[in-house]
Amino acid sequence: MTAPDVEVKALVFDVFGTVVDWRSGVIREGEKLGRATDGNVEVDWASFADAWREEYQPSLGRVRQGEIPWRNLDALHRESLEGLLDRFGVEGLTDAEIEHLNRSWHRLDPWPDAIPGLSRLKPHYVISPLSNGHVRLLTNMAKRAGIPWDLILSAELSGHYKPDEEAYLTAVDILDLEPDRVMMVAAHEGDLDASREAGLRTAYVHRPLEYGPEAAESAEKPDDSAYDIVADDFVDLAERLDAPSIV
Amino acid sequence: MTAPDVEVKALVFDVFGTVVDWRSGVIREGEKLGRATDGNVEVDWASFADAWREEYQPSLGRVRQGEIPWRNLDALHRESLEGLLDRFGVEGLTDAEIEHLNRSWHRLDPWPDAIPGLSRLKPHYVISPLSNGHVRLLTNMAKRAGIPWDLILSAELSGHYKPDEEAYLTAVDILDLEPDRVMMVAAHEGDLDASREAGLRTAYVHRPLEYGPEAAESAEKPDDSAYDIVADDFVDLAERLDAPSIV
Repeated sequence: MTAPDVEVKALVFDVFGTVVDWRSGVIREGEKLGRATDGNVEVDWASFADAWREEYQPSLGRVRQGEIPWRNLDALHRESLEGLLDRFGVEGLTDAEIEHLNRSWHRLDPWPDAIPGLSRLKPHYVISPLSNGHVRLLTNMAKRAGIPWDLILSAELSGHYKPDEEAYLTAVDILDLEPDRVMMVAAHEGDLDASREAGLRTAYVHRPLEYGPEAAESAEKPDDSAYDIVADDFVDLAERLDAPSIV
Repeated sequence: MTAPDVEVKALVFDVFGTVVDWRSGVIREGEKLGRATDGNVEVDWASFADAWREEYQPSLGRVRQGEIPWRNLDALHRESLEGLLDRFGVEGLTDAEIEHLNRSWHRLDPWPDAIPGLSRLKPHYVISPLSNGHVRLLTNMAKRAGIPWDLILSAELSGHYKPDEEAYLTAVDILDLEPDRVMMVAAHEGDLDASREAGLRTAYVHRPLEYGPEAAESAEKPDDSAYDIVADDFVDLAERLDAPSIV
């Protein structure tokens, strides 16, 4: 639990996997494309989604290690996507169709508890994403899904991808707070470990379904002592942060 | 009106004077402080508010001309405030009281048409402030007053105050749009002229009461041809941008 002598003022959230279910969303968008192209595109979209996400860390890594200059997630996703379409034998898509598929990541749905939990937290804390997704992507996503952020923070504003320290500290600076007044919320330990290293408070939220139902069985939750809070979902997070329901 | 061949995607708004009534807000906060200190602080708060705002452009100017390094509006307001308290003969305030008064600018109320107009625009456009107020100030203001922004943009993100070109172009870049897809909305011609110079579309909204009822009579509205849109208020702006009411 939060130490009583340091009052957290803002909660910043990882998004892909933590707030939204990227896997189901990408599968749905792929299947839609399949129907729109009259069955000319036949793909196992679950494998496609997993393969796309597998390229995520390596592609961030190329920016983080300075191999390629900063570019936003649309650009990185598009680079991976071109290769994947080849690999999965998808042919004949128009550029507009490829771009629409690329922007599936703007059109992901929140986990069912995400908006209820955020709505309870919002009267008590400043709430913002702090994602490797760029501001425009996060804005589109929030507008479409009704995610009630107070503002949109992103690694983009630092020109560094998480888990680079700059991503966290730029967000803290824009919030005009000390790092220990800000709590990072994520379903990924690497993100939280880097946040703690940068001086932020940390809350883990368990998302066993992130990699699909088959992977859920082996998804392990860290010990309660591993982070300031270890929560089962966003409503549980609100309970633990003492943000009571007003109904 | 908007030229039919360029579709505006995002509207960015000046805030002090355009969205919120800073003068009434500062007067109210000053009077509150007067009551809280049992009449020990007797000030003509209208004159005080006007004097505070008069220091605004010169104090931005010192940053814009490189006389002093970047600092946010809380810092600039506080510097002016110290001088003004002296000038108005206010003594004996605690540091916490001075700081609370300084943050009056976080607690300003929107003009009555602002939220109704923004609520009509929001389903059709990305809406954001683009103020010289820093992100934290704008976030606090929106949270307190329920201003339904999609995201919070600020000159702060560029490290340059409006009307420096960087303030506009950084916002456009974060929106991931071409400048002519973004419309600046303001009650101030200097802001709009600089926006147009930077390639943005422009909408003027008339706020004759910004400097108080006495100044209202001499407040002049520019010709309809001066900007892409010249509107009477935010609801009129929504009408002209073809954002019909859904009730």
